[in-house]
Order: sequence, then C-alpha cells, then structure tokens
Amino acid sequence: MKILTRELKISTSSRFQLIDITESVEKIVEESGVRNGLVLVFAPHATASIVLNEHESGLMEDMIQKLVEFTEPGSSKWRHNAIDDNAHAHLGSAFFGQERVLPVVDGRVVRGTWQNIFLVEMDGPRRSRSVIVTVMGE
Amino acid sequence: MKILTRELKISTSSRFQLIDITESVEKIVEESGVRNGLVLVFAPHATASIVLNEHESGLMEDMIQKLVEFTEPGSSKWRHNAIDDNAHAHLGSAFFGQERVLPVVDGRVVRGTWQNIFLVEMDGPRRSRSVIVTVMGE
Amino acid sequence: MKILTRELKISTSSRFQLIDITESVEKIVEESGVRNGLVLVFAPHATASIVLNEHESGLMEDMIQKLVEFTEPGSSKWRHNAIDDNAHAHLGSAFFGQERVLPVVDGRVVRGTWQNIFLVEMDGPRRSRSVIVTVMGE
Repeated sequence: MKILTRELKISTSSRFQLIDITESVEKIVEESGVRNGLVLVFAPHATASIVLNEHESGLMEDMIQKLVEFTEPGSSKWRHNAIDDNAHAHLGSAFFGQERVLPVVDGRVVRGTWQNIFLVEMDGPRRSRSVIVTVMGE
Repeated sequence: MKILTRELKISTSSRFQLIDITESVEKIVEESGVRNGLVLVFAPHATASIVLNEHESGLMEDMIQKLVEFTEPGSSKWRHNAIDDNAHAHLGSAFFGQERVLPVVDGRVVRGTWQNIFLVEMDGPRRSRSVIVTVMGE
Repeated sequence: MKILTRELKISTSSRFQLIDITESVEKIVEESGVRNGLVLVFAPHATASIVLNEHESGLMEDMIQKLVEFTEPGSSKWRHNAIDDNAHAHLGSAFFGQERVLPVVDGRVVRGTWQNIFLVEMDGPRRSRSVIVTVMGE
C-alpha cells in the first residue's frame, strides 16, 4: 500500500472566497505514485469548507451569495457572534463539510468535466489556510 | 490490500429525481472480496449529489421540495443562469456533496435500516449519469 | 495494511443535541496502531449527522437553531410527517451527511484547533445511537 500526505498552504484575500486547488491536488496524486485508490482533500479549519464544482465566475459568485443567505453573517441571532463575530463561517463550514473524497483510477483523480476542487474561505482574509491531501492506494 | 472500482451507468427521467443505488453498490462490494475497509460512492458530476436516507416515497418528495426551496431553480438572482439555467443544480451539488463513504465490515456495507444510497438528479433528464464505486480494504 | 473498526454506543437526551465524540475517536485511532492513513467516522442513521466544528456552547446552540430553521420540524408541508413526524431529521441528516473522513498522520488525527467531532442528534432522545469508526492505513 502507498500513502502520501502533503499540506497545501494558502493565503486568502477576501472574507468570502473560492480558491481553485484542483491542479495542486492532482500534482500530489501524481507524486504519490498511487495508481488505484482514493484521495482525501481535508481543510483543518472550522470556518472553511471544501466543495467540488464548476470554475465559472458567475457561479462562484452565486455560491458565495448562497452561503451568505444561508449563514447570515453578522446576525445578532447567532450567539457565537458575541464572542467572535464569525458564527456564519462556523455554520457554513460545519454543515457543508471540510472534506471531499475522490477516487483515483489509473493514476488520475476521477472527476467530472465541471468538477473542480475549491477551498471555500468564509472568514478571510487569512494568511495561512491549510489543506491536507492524503492519497491512499496501490 | 484489495481495491476495486466499478462504474454504474444511470439514466434519469425527471429534472429532479432520487435513484436508489443501494443494491448496485452492495453487489460491487461483494464482487470486490473486501472483508474490512470502506466504500466510496462518488458522482463525477457538478449538478447531482449522493445522499443516504430512507426510501419512503413521501420523504423522497420532501427531499426534492427542500432542494427546490434551497436552490431556487430559475431565479434571476443566480448569475450562472445567464449561461446555462441550471445554477440551482450546481449549488445543491456543491453544498450537499457528490460523495459518501461507508464502512465495510465482514464483507458487508455498514448502513442503518433506513439508510439507502441515492443518486440525486437535479438537472435531468440525463441519459448517462455515472456513479463511481471504489471499494478498498482487505 | 492495518484496519480497525470500532462502534461507539451513545445515549442522547434531547430532540436536538450535539455530542462531542472527539476523544473517543482519537482513542480508537491510537488503539489501531495506524501511523498514516485516514479515519472514517460514520453514523448508521437516517436522522442524525456527523459534523466537525468548535465546542463552544453558544455556537452549539446556533448550529441547532440553524438546523431547525433549515428543516422546519413539525411542518405540515413535509409528507413524511404524516407517517413519522420526523421529516426534519431525515432532511438534515441526508443533506448534511452522516459521515466525515479525517487524515491520520504520525499516529494522530489531523484536525484544526476548533474542529471537534460531533454526533448531531436530530430526533432524540434515543438510547442507542451508534457511531462506527474505521481506521485504515499503515
């Protein structure tokens, strides 16, 4: 069995932002030498998510708009805002998840044509966001 | 270590539809010969999801109703609709995820009594939806 | 390759409740002897979820409030409520997912400072909730 874990270091520049990490993930899968197995893409954060979708600028804005609608940044109804003013980011991160798992077949990540891999920043800007990529297989 | 990947080919007949793929997934796990490990059920699409829940017709309609409420098909507020009129499906797919991972113990998929595996179509009908099933373990 | 699966048995005391299972998961990872790989935390239920987030009491109440807003317990619009009066729990469980997967590196679960592991009860109280923890790696 082969296992490789690598960490991506990412700086974000806005409160809400989608960062396309597809190419970086695919390079790690290539480096791993795994021909068949899976890859786990995991953000060790409580105010960010990982999602898979199309890299189209309008849609990327739509995703952020939906996140804002769903999580209501700054709302006084969130108790956590009395402590840190980022309850919205915790809620989005918890419910939409901080990881995605994709198959690896014949040395390549299996993904659809419109299925890029994004880190979703919900409480930026941050200098040192991290994404852990673990490839496992043979 | 044993690894087996198979692809399910699925035709959908409605714009929104839940297709129960539990039996197909369980057959692939059986075929794999894996006794202990996990199974990844992954849809290589940006307008569909995989979810686990009860196969009860009323609930299946409720799930679709909730998806419609959450994603607002046809809304002019989604920028992506200027391009492709399926922003709702991208949003549902991104946030609710295109994969689920289940344990395999003693050669069987571990799942609750009411926990069937569904492909969620949000932009059908489509002739060639795909689900990739990867079983890994020993 | 090493694989270990253990089952946590959990009693819940409220209709909605977050139960922190971080320590229990970490003990199973330690017991497994896996140095590098991943851990799958899976609830074999259709009315509960697994999420990762901060163990802060205000935020934990916010998460439950958001779940209630999203799933509308008791609403007559959910067809499943004619059968079992817990459609809300099925909807939350399906869409937010019953599992999370985390990397294991150097014998430890990789997680952020504010990223605890919770079972989310949405249809309690229940005497015998279960969480299946599968550790896989070498």
